Amino acid sequence: MHLLDVTKPDGRAMTLYGLSPVRLDGPVPSPFPDPLNANPHLRWHPLRGEWITYAAYRQGRTFMPPPEYNPLAVCISPDNPTELPAGDYAIAVFENRFPSLSMEAHDPPQALVETAPGTGICEVVVFTTDPKSSLGALPLAQIELLLSVWGDRTTRAAATGKIQYVLPFENRGAEVGVTLHHPHGQIYAYPFVPPVPARMLAMQQQHYEKTRRALLKDMIDSHLAAATGIIYHGPHAVAFVPSCARYPYEVWVSTIEPVATFSELSDAQRADLARALKTVILKYDGLWQRPFPYLMAWYGAPTDGKPHPESFLHAEFFPPYRSRDRLKYLAGTELGAGMFAMDVLPEEKAKELQAVEVHID
Amino acid sequence: MHLLDVTKPDGRAMTLYGLSPVRLDGPVPSPFPDPLNANPHLRWHPLRGEWITYAAYRQGRTFMPPPEYNPLAVCISPDNPTELPAGDYAIAVFENRFPSLSMEAHDPPQALVETAPGTGICEVVVFTTDPKSSLGALPLAQIELLLSVWGDRTTRAAATGKIQYVLPFENRGAEVGVTLHHPHGQIYAYPFVPPVPARMLAMQQQHYEKTRRALLKDMIDSHLAAATGIIYHGPHAVAFVPSCARYPYEVWVSTIEPVATFSELSDAQRADLARALKTVILKYDGLWQRPFPYLMAWYGAPTDGKPHPESFLHAEFFPPYRSRDRLKYLAGTELGAGMFAMDVLPEEKAKELQAVEVHID
Repeated sequence: MHLLDVTKPDGRAMTLYGLSPVRLDGPVPSPFPDPLNANPHLRWHPLRGEWITYAAYRQGRTFMPPPEYNPLAVCISPDNPTELPAGDYAIAVFENRFPSLSMEAHDPPQALVETAPGTGICEVVVFTTDPKSSLGALPLAQIELLLSVWGDRTTRAAATGKIQYVLPFENRGAEVGVTLHHPHGQIYAYPFVPPVPARMLAMQQQHYEKTRRALLKDMIDSHLAAATGIIYHGPHAVAFVPSCARYPYEVWVSTIEPVATFSELSDAQRADLARALKTVILKYDGLWQRPFPYLMAWYGAPTDGKPHPESFLHAEFFPPYRSRDRLKYLAGTELGAGMFAMDVLPEEKAKELQAVEVHID
Repeated sequence: MHLLDVTKPDGRAMTLYGLSPVRLDGPVPSPFPDPLNANPHLRWHPLRGEWITYAAYRQGRTFMPPPEYNPLAVCISPDNPTELPAGDYAIAVFENRFPSLSMEAHDPPQALVETAPGTGICEVVVFTTDPKSSLGALPLAQIELLLSVWGDRTTRAAATGKIQYVLPFENRGAEVGVTLHHPHGQIYAYPFVPPVPARMLAMQQQHYEKTRRALLKDMIDSHLAAATGIIYHGPHAVAFVPSCARYPYEVWVSTIEPVATFSELSDAQRADLARALKTVILKYDGLWQRPFPYLMAWYGAPTDGKPHPESFLHAEFFPPYRSRDRLKYLAGTELGAGMFAMDVLPEEKAKELQAVEVHID
């Protein structure tokens, strides 16, 4: 992995990653001339026992971009700056201009509940300089690079000493609120372990203390043994519809043997994990012969400096569709009670994905 | 409160409620001629430590209704049966035809995770026989009746001995997936305390053990003392945008003094709570002069037979809009991590609602 750290004119950090040495062919641009001075703050929700972050930026921008303006495109004219410089690189990561969490956060305002600085990192990860591509369409080598990039960002966030959890994710599709279709994801680095991974961690710890085994490893083994819900099964990686899926087309992707973080992946594991990931997304896109929207979240070990033998790096895909034409809305029981209700069986949905043929060189 | 219990031709139970004695003017209809034999099952999600319910019904219906067909309308012709009989009553409650939980659930299938019968109750609550009305438009007396109906349903569910939590809710608007605009809500009765109320209960219990006070009571007192976020303040009830709101237009509604369940409300409390509820919804609808979508969830004490002095009945409104034209999508950080990110301050959104004038006789 090759990389180059640069700074944008408005002060934001950017890293360019490549499979070969990175070369800049022009200035590092920013659509925004001035620094932002981001200062988000946290408020404690006493009833739910969780932090919420508040980042109230003025929505007024310095210019009104035309509808076809793609801020993630490579910059070709200094009169129309984007986020990406011209040059030779494969993947770009930069600080979100309007972050929900910031390492600069300070002096939180008083509120009627406890407050704290919104310390953290919000980054944009541009998967490719090709605005018409998609994560699943990228060459395997570039997906492998992305896995390494997520590892590098996690390591860097941990090195600040102020981050306890790093979540790389991709929101894909207008159905999940994405209006910018240039292939990209985001990374949130939190100053605490947030509720969902905290709950998963607690369950994994309970299981590990009882069995000395990773909980996800036992789940993978049972799915492989029963040959149930398997979407991909390679030498080192697996993708499957879990028997306890909460979304009709939910799929999990991971190595077969437990790995706690991206940086612990062997070359062979990383290569097969990239193939598993590509397979899943191509099957999604092939299912209805159109781009398939989803939320993809990567869950690794906390960066809290403690050992996490119970933890097992994996991705979970939460697609919003229940069938070709019908969205699954999260409403009363899901958002109000936290209990998901499914009107299909995971095993049936897995068959649909299994039947989609994909070809990867 | 007057009521009449009846049974539909397909075996489902229905109760008609009125402010005056209930009178039937025709047969009790059902759009479905045959019993369903609902048999949902639960699966345990080992990583998240929560139950998911699966109810895979054949989507094939016995007839294709025309687009204008309203199954919640009062039945006027036996050739075109709906769910509601002709007669004199104000509110109807009946068992959902395709329930996610059922008291008949039995013999759960085996899966790769632990399974259990999907025991519980899913009911539809028709707020009025007027398909063009809305909860906020109903007379105060009918909203008071609805509060009593929710209490009656909770008491009945508890009496089965198999229900630990009852959640009355309303999903309103196409934006939250509702295609049927006849004013109605639902009730889910769970065989366990589901994750969201369980977490709220744990936080309330901690606070109560430390202070011997209800946590929500302290939150209400601080909002009233600071005069912050208050949307309604009557002699016995209050509505406010909480300082820790997770949705831009989130509002909570409750009595001022703690009440654990609907059935504990005094007449004066019930009347003022109805006025608070009506005020909130009319302000929502007045904000942009159009029906305002939301999820409204009512959180009361568990029906687990234990005392709950920490518990405080209240409604929480989760509206999907962040501004007139923009939805707040739940994506990476909300669904993936469980941390909500807000780009507005609750105090600012409260001012918008405070400025909406409503008139209630």
